[in-house]
Parts: sequence; C-alpha cells; structure tokens
Amino acid sequence: MSKISKISGFPEFLPGQKLAEEQIVARIRQVYQRAGFVPIETPAVELLSTLQAKGSVDKEIYVLRRLHAEGDEREELALHFDLTVPFSRYVAQHFASLNFPFKRYQLQKVWRGERPQKGRYREFYQFDIDIICRDDLPVSCDAEAIDVFAEALSLIGLPEYEIRINDRKILLGFYEALGLNPEQQKKTISMVDKLDKIGRDGVLKGLQQDVALDAATAQRILDLTDRRLAPKEAAEVLGAMQIDNPLFAQGVQDTLALLELISEESLSRIVIDLSLARGLDYYTGLILEVRMKEYPEFGSIGSGGRYDNLASEFTSQKLPGVGFSIGLSRILGFLFEEKRIEIPRDSTTEVLIAVYNEEQRRECARLARDLRREGVAAEVYFKSPKLGKQLDFADARGIPYVLFVGTEDGSLQVKDLRSKEQSALASVGELVERVRSGRSNG
Amino acid sequence: MSKISKISGFPEFLPGQKLAEEQIVARIRQVYQRAGFVPIETPAVELLSTLQAKGSVDKEIYVLRRLHAEGDEREELALHFDLTVPFSRYVAQHFASLNFPFKRYQLQKVWRGERPQKGRYREFYQFDIDIICRDDLPVSCDAEAIDVFAEALSLIGLPEYEIRINDRKILLGFYEALGLNPEQQKKTISMVDKLDKIGRDGVLKGLQQDVALDAATAQRILDLTDRRLAPKEAAEVLGAMQIDNPLFAQGVQDTLALLELISEESLSRIVIDLSLARGLDYYTGLILEVRMKEYPEFGSIGSGGRYDNLASEFTSQKLPGVGFSIGLSRILGFLFEEKRIEIPRDSTTEVLIAVYNEEQRRECARLARDLRREGVAAEVYFKSPKLGKQLDFADARGIPYVLFVGTEDGSLQVKDLRSKEQSALASVGELVERVRSGRSNG
Repeated sequence: MSKISKISGFPEFLPGQKLAEEQIVARIRQVYQRAGFVPIETPAVELLSTLQAKGSVDKEIYVLRRLHAEGDEREELALHFDLTVPFSRYVAQHFASLNFPFKRYQLQKVWRGERPQKGRYREFYQFDIDIICRDDLPVSCDAEAIDVFAEALSLIGLPEYEIRINDRKILLGFYEALGLNPEQQKKTISMVDKLDKIGRDGVLKGLQQDVALDAATAQRILDLTDRRLAPKEAAEVLGAMQIDNPLFAQGVQDTLALLELISEESLSRIVIDLSLARGLDYYTGLILEVRMKEYPEFGSIGSGGRYDNLASEFTSQKLPGVGFSIGLSRILGFLFEEKRIEIPRDSTTEVLIAVYNEEQRRECARLARDLRREGVAAEVYFKSPKLGKQLDFADARGIPYVLFVGTEDGSLQVKDLRSKEQSALASVGELVERVRSGRSNG
Repeated sequence: MSKISKISGFPEFLPGQKLAEEQIVARIRQVYQRAGFVPIETPAVELLSTLQAKGSVDKEIYVLRRLHAEGDEREELALHFDLTVPFSRYVAQHFASLNFPFKRYQLQKVWRGERPQKGRYREFYQFDIDIICRDDLPVSCDAEAIDVFAEALSLIGLPEYEIRINDRKILLGFYEALGLNPEQQKKTISMVDKLDKIGRDGVLKGLQQDVALDAATAQRILDLTDRRLAPKEAAEVLGAMQIDNPLFAQGVQDTLALLELISEESLSRIVIDLSLARGLDYYTGLILEVRMKEYPEFGSIGSGGRYDNLASEFTSQKLPGVGFSIGLSRILGFLFEEKRIEIPRDSTTEVLIAVYNEEQRRECARLARDLRREGVAAEVYFKSPKLGKQLDFADARGIPYVLFVGTEDGSLQVKDLRSKEQSALASVGELVERVRSGRSNG
C-alpha cells in the first residue's frame, strides 16, 4: 500500500469547509457581476517567457516537464505565479474582442515554487478584479473599484479590518521635494515597504546606507510614515503639509477626489496611511492594502492599486488600470483555523426520505425529484434498514426533516428532528412550505 | 515587446463564453447539491508516487520543477491527470472525518502532458460525482448516481445524446462461458474497447492474434457487440440469451434491477449497449458512456461506472463506489465551436446610469448601489461625455435600460433601449419592478 504524506504548502479542505468557500465565492461573484464585471479565466499554464516578460521575477516559478519527455524537449511551460501577468497577456491577445473599459473578475489558483516552509502556501486561490481603460483612466474608476472590492470584503465574515490607502505620487513627490533622484526614489519605496519587516531603525539605517541619504532626510522620510489619517481629516492635514512639488500636489488632489467619490460604507473602513508603499514597480497612483486590526502580524489579506500601463510588454496599446486582489485561500485558512467562520454541516440536504422496504424505493425517488424541483434538497436513504438507523443518519448530518411514506396507502408523515415532532402531511407541497419557512427562521 | 503565441492544448474562453460556463456550472452544482452531494477539492499537485500508486499510468504526466531548484532537489511533485486518483487519496487520508455513504462532486482542471496535437486538450475541466459506501454498495446507489448525472447532463444544452450502459459482469461472464481464462478476458475487454478505433475487422484479427482465440469464438464475441437494447426489451432479450454462467446471470440481474429503479427521464436516454467495454481496469459492474447521436466521431462526453474498491492503494478499508465524469471543457469547446449554445452578451449589466456631469457621480453611484441591493445589475458610466456616447456604450453591450438623473431636481427617467421608449420614474423601486418583469418576459 502506498503511504500518504501531506504535502506542505498545498492546503486541502474538508467538505464543510469547501461548502463554506463555495458560498463565499458565490456571494463575491454576485457582487462583481451586479457591478458589471465579467469573468475571465486563463490556463494555469503560460510560456515561461510570458511569465518573465516583465523582467526578472522574484516569485518562485514551477516549470513543467513531461514525465515521458524525450531528451531534446525544451522546458518552456510553467504555472502562473499570479493573475496579473496572465491577465496582461490575455488583454493584449484578445484586445480586438474586448470592450473597454474592460471590467473583469478572475478567481483562480496560483502557484509559488517555494521551498516547503511552515504557514507558506505553494498553491492558493486569488480573487482579482480590475478595470482597464484605453488611454486614460478617470479617478471614478479607482472609486468604483474600491467600492466593489470593499463590498466583496464585507461578505467574507472577517474580523475587524481596515483598508489602508496611499498614493505613490504623494510619496514620490515628497521624495522629489527632498532632492532624491529617480533611482533613489525607487529604492526608498522598497525600503519603506520593508517597515513591517525590518522596523524603524532598519529603515533609517537602510535609507542612509543603501540609498545614500543623509540622516536628516532619512528621518523626514521616516516621519512621513507616521501619518495615518481618517478620511475626513485628509484634506486639512495633507493641505497643511506645504510640500512644493507638482507630483505631490497631484497625489493629494487625486486622493481627495477619490475620497469624495467613494461610498460611506467604504469610507468607514478606510485609513490614509502614508507608510504604505507596496513593493511592486508598476503602481503609479493609488495603492491599497487590507489588514485585520487584531492580527497585524498576519499581514495583508488584500491589496492592489493603479498602474499606468497593464500590458506594455505585449502590446503598444496604452491600457491604464486599477485593480485589487483578495487572498482567498489565506483568508479562509485563517478563518477556519481561528474558528472565525461557521462551517456549514457536511450536507446541504433538507429532507431525508426514509425507506421501509425496497419495493417503495422508486416511489421515494419520485418524491425526492418532486422536492428538488421545488428547490428543496432531498435524498433517499440508500438501503432499507430499521428506521432508527435512518434517523441516526439524518441526525449525524444535521438533516432537519425525515419523510416517511406509508407502504400501504402512500400517506406522508414528516418528522422534524429539531422539535422531534412528527405529523401527517396532505401533500409534498405542504412539506415544501414547511422547509421554506423553516429556512427563514433558522 | 514579448511575442504572444497561443499554446496548443490550453483552451481559453472569451468573457461571454466564460459567463456561459459559469452559468452551466452553477446549474450542475445546484442539481448535485440538491441531491445531497457535497463538494471537495484537492490540490492540483500530488506526489508523483501517489499518481503512480495504481501501477503504471498510461496518461502523460506533467512533473513540476522549481525554476530556481538547486542541483540535488528531487522532482517529486506532479499535476494530477484525472480526479479519481486524488479522490482516492483524499478519502483514505480524511477517512475518519467523512460520513458514509460519501457523496461528493468535484469540479477541477486536470492536466495531460501530451505532445501538442490538434484538438487534443492538455488542460481541461472535469466535473465528477461519486457515491462511496463502506463494505457494500447497493444497486440503488448506481440508480441514484445515474439519475443525478442524467439530470446534470440535461442542463448543458447538448444536441441529442444517449447514455449507453453495460455491465462488466455480463461481458466477463459471457467470455468465461466461452472458455476464456481471466487473462484472456482482460485482453478481450481492451480489444473490444477499441472497436470504434480499429473497426470490426481489427477486433476480429486482434482477438485471434493477440488473445489467441479461435475464429468462431472471436466471431461470437464480435456478435455480442452488435446488441443494442432499449430498456424495455432488456429483460426479454438478455433472458433469452441462455448463457449458463453465474457472473453473466448476476450482471443481467443487476442491470434489470437498475433499470427498474431509474427515473423515466433517465430511461428515455438510455441504451443497453453490449459493445461498451471501457478501457479502465478497475470497473467491476455497471459501465457507462455518453455520446452525441449526430457526432459519433466526437467520442465520449461523459463516462464512468462502478468499482469494488476505490482506495485499495491507500487504505485497508473496503470502499466500493459508483461515479461518473462530465468532460466539461471538451463539451463547451464543442458547443461554442458549433454555435450550439447561446453565448450571453459580454455584460450582465441591466441598467446603465448615465452621467451628465461629474458633480452628480456620487448620487449616481448611490442609485447604482440601491439597484444592486434589489438584485438589479447596475453600473455608472465611467466618464461624463455627451449622452449619445453613453447610449452607444449601453447598446454595444446589450444593456437594456439607461437611467437618467436630473441635474436640478434628481428626477429619474429611464430609456428602454429595445423599445426605444423613454419615460419618467417615480422612484428607483419602479425601475426595479420594470427590470424584473422584463427579465421574465425576455
């Protein structure tokens, strides 16, 4: 017999957990669809050259090899490590068939070829949305994307969380005003992004040693990261900063315009956090990160931002966009572990039809079909042992109703396993009504 | 700029097609859930040793290698090539946490590391259901699985198809009665399974040359494959065959019991096809295959059967089961190509809210949220150009209604783009009603 070993980094849910995941996914999908987003899906596999088109990739990649490959076959296929690169390739490839603004959602697994390490996933779901425009992207799109993303987040059952936003232009304008050259600005972004990891002293030291800034400049950059503003104080505080730099001014203006546009519900979650830098090169304006307040060490559970050009590696079309990603598997893994989410019972069945003897199985199956046609989840017990055993089966799975069919006259009786009451039914329709009203009360 | 090349064998849908796929998947999932099946999902990745646990695998496997692997790392991970092997491993691994009979559905991609070849997929979705019992599996489970599978098939929008069934015991009993030893029986199954590919003469020749049968025996085996019976003639014809063999008799008895139990709807699709052999070793009773009548050359679009022991490689528990798989990607690829399925428009939006000027965007966004809360898919135009342009946008995407909000008084007007009529609205609620009734008529 083959030994089964768990493979670290490849999480696997039990049926109840998978059911909870499906329910959450259905809710998020509905939010996205109702806001006019359409689904896309790309293969798990891309050409390795596509995945590396944006230059060197710091994510670990899994390359594919055919087990029965012949000696001269080149390894050119690999599993995608995020959904952004495949999405860029997709938009460039199908450009002529798409309508712009192109608003898409995409729920897929991604793979990271990392060495096994506790708590690190090597296969996980991401749930992305993006809005892509041709040539220019108004700030209304940033606001729309945030609102829809925030509504999706609100349906997951997360503990208290906040949506931190910042604008790259504010950071870069501030650094420019301090006299940093573009190369230094870029390095400073990376250094500030490490604040959580290496701490304030680490950043201060890094800015001086790696970015060659003087102590006073480094300190001013660090001071900026202390600023965390509620949306309603943003105008006043950012306006009072008196930084004489057009990029900075534009960043402030765009941020205030954004805050004007987004909904009250979203605003209640938002903090303007000037320490937020985001590591990725391609962000050019809004950047965003979601964190759980009570679990700061858990890190970001959702993130994204605005970029000037989605697919410059694959097409000459200018395609600015804004988008966010929900780290679905990480979030669910956490919620399950912390018992923060109610896991549905292992069955969605609402009515179990008991079977007195095999002669009546066909009739029972017909009743089950009638119930299902009315939207009631029903199944027939698979054998015909003593009724006690069949009731135990329903109990163990949390099935609320058991239906009995008289062997002589086909008369119907139902037992409610929660109230333990048993009663006669005039028709299947009566049971359908009972199940429906039980749902809304339960 | 990086060149984009299509990778053969990795299909990719446009948004409207993906939307159609999501709708079909939702319908199938509902059928399975209402019948008491629960979802599971396994990682895409298994240990190579797990995938090979059932012995030599004739499917081509993709092995994973970390791009930055160090020299001494062993390649031990691979992508699954079907859902049956991962399911076996899953049931064995989580045995103590599962309820039996365990009824699961599983929709996932599988990968085949084949050489590129026209029309051959290397990545595709399969949608599987199985019922697994402990120790013994009554024929009622075969019937239940067929009924639920047949209902799912009926929701896909397939052209005329038939569900062919047979029983391995009928074949093996027949071969045994002809004097074939077990090894010859096994080889004969494989040979008969090739009937479509190599034709009658090929099978006749193969049975004599490869299985070492005399011409008369080979002919009798070939003759059996001519038998195609409607369910209602099965009892008479099979009974009249006068094969004196207990295995054959058991196969006939089980088949007739099965036909007694399944629904009229399923029966109307079913043919008892004694040429059906199925290649896979592990089937022990019922075997099944679905084919489109007008496209015989397309081959099987769904298949499965009954097996005595799901997970004998991984556990000493005896777990007989019955299950079927829908070749979802192959089916959808075909339906799209043949224009056999209506592809929804590229947007699910029902109401576009036009924007006269940016001052009213916040109000428009609020109205959009009100509509969505009532279940109406609504979006706000992303800029505020002349109305004609906004109407063109709605037209191009097939959005049926455009809502106008008065800049002075907030008064509402709606234009129905199908009737071209424009009218005043007393409230958003009125529009919700209009959209809802338009849905049921449309």
